[in-house]
Amino acid sequence: MTNSKKKTIAIDMDGVIADTAAQFIHWYQKQYGVSLERTVFDGKPEADALPDGAAGKFVRSQGFFRTIPVMPGAQNAMQQLMKHFEVYIVSAAMEFPLSLSEKYEWIREHFPFIEWRHIIFCGDKSVIDTDYMIDDHIRNLDCCKGKTILFTAGHNLGIDRHMRVNNWDDILTFLQKELQTV
Amino acid sequence: MTNSKKKTIAIDMDGVIADTAAQFIHWYQKQYGVSLERTVFDGKPEADALPDGAAGKFVRSQGFFRTIPVMPGAQNAMQQLMKHFEVYIVSAAMEFPLSLSEKYEWIREHFPFIEWRHIIFCGDKSVIDTDYMIDDHIRNLDCCKGKTILFTAGHNLGIDRHMRVNNWDDILTFLQKELQTV
Repeated sequence: MTNSKKKTIAIDMDGVIADTAAQFIHWYQKQYGVSLERTVFDGKPEADALPDGAAGKFVRSQGFFRTIPVMPGAQNAMQQLMKHFEVYIVSAAMEFPLSLSEKYEWIREHFPFIEWRHIIFCGDKSVIDTDYMIDDHIRNLDCCKGKTILFTAGHNLGIDRHMRVNNWDDILTFLQKELQTV
Repeated sequence: MTNSKKKTIAIDMDGVIADTAAQFIHWYQKQYGVSLERTVFDGKPEADALPDGAAGKFVRSQGFFRTIPVMPGAQNAMQQLMKHFEVYIVSAAMEFPLSLSEKYEWIREHFPFIEWRHIIFCGDKSVIDTDYMIDDHIRNLDCCKGKTILFTAGHNLGIDRHMRVNNWDDILTFLQKELQTV
């Protein structure tokens, strides 16, 4: 199953391979007729970013997680990484039980090359042990025993206790360097 | 969230807190009108235990995982363990995607005291890092970095490379001793 020679990477879904901010803005426009800028998320928790508590309603609505756009560059980058790493998709899906089957179907559609053995839906990520963890939430990275990579999102701007990447090209650049130093 | 002073335990669902063998026998009786003995599982993979490949059909049928009986003693024992350990339910649910929501609802019904942060649905368990792992499948225990506890099931009889328990009383007895030696 697992090639023990390869290092392991836990890769988050929302905000990392799924462009959840774009989906929030799209659903807000669709339901309220108002176009928000992406900067609406800057410096505040995601749950508080949209007016009227809309974010909390959206994540509990059927279809929200199933139709999130893929983060640009994620599909190609994941395939590149799989040549050299054991890549796991690790999503904190338990908070929104409706999301379980939607997230599974979304992965099957957009990342069919990730086999089911490498998908993990969890609550907190404190018992996940991988060599690398890529996440936009510091609460997940803070308890990670491996090397941590913070994927930039509005809600994590200004935080400097994890290595930051701004896009999937940054991730490939960093991990290619890691391969050379191992 | 997690009290770092408590040791962590990963507890499997099928064959450990859910009496999956009893459910197989019950469904076989219901669909084929034949009462099988529990010994039908002895010494062979679960998938091959029932005639006509019935096991493989059942695990892909709606309602199978939702209605499995609880393993005797599991509810009370889990509540006892939670006083001294961080208890995680860790189930290899990804092989049967239909089971995701059914397993979640089953946990909510029978183990409502396990909060969502402590539920993990995965494929393989190789990146799960807990101090203890209780499982009936050696493939999960073999890659565990912590102490392993093999819950007796027909398919694992005769295997002696993990500490064996036969029921939830055995688990409580062992883990109570562990608490005294820490």
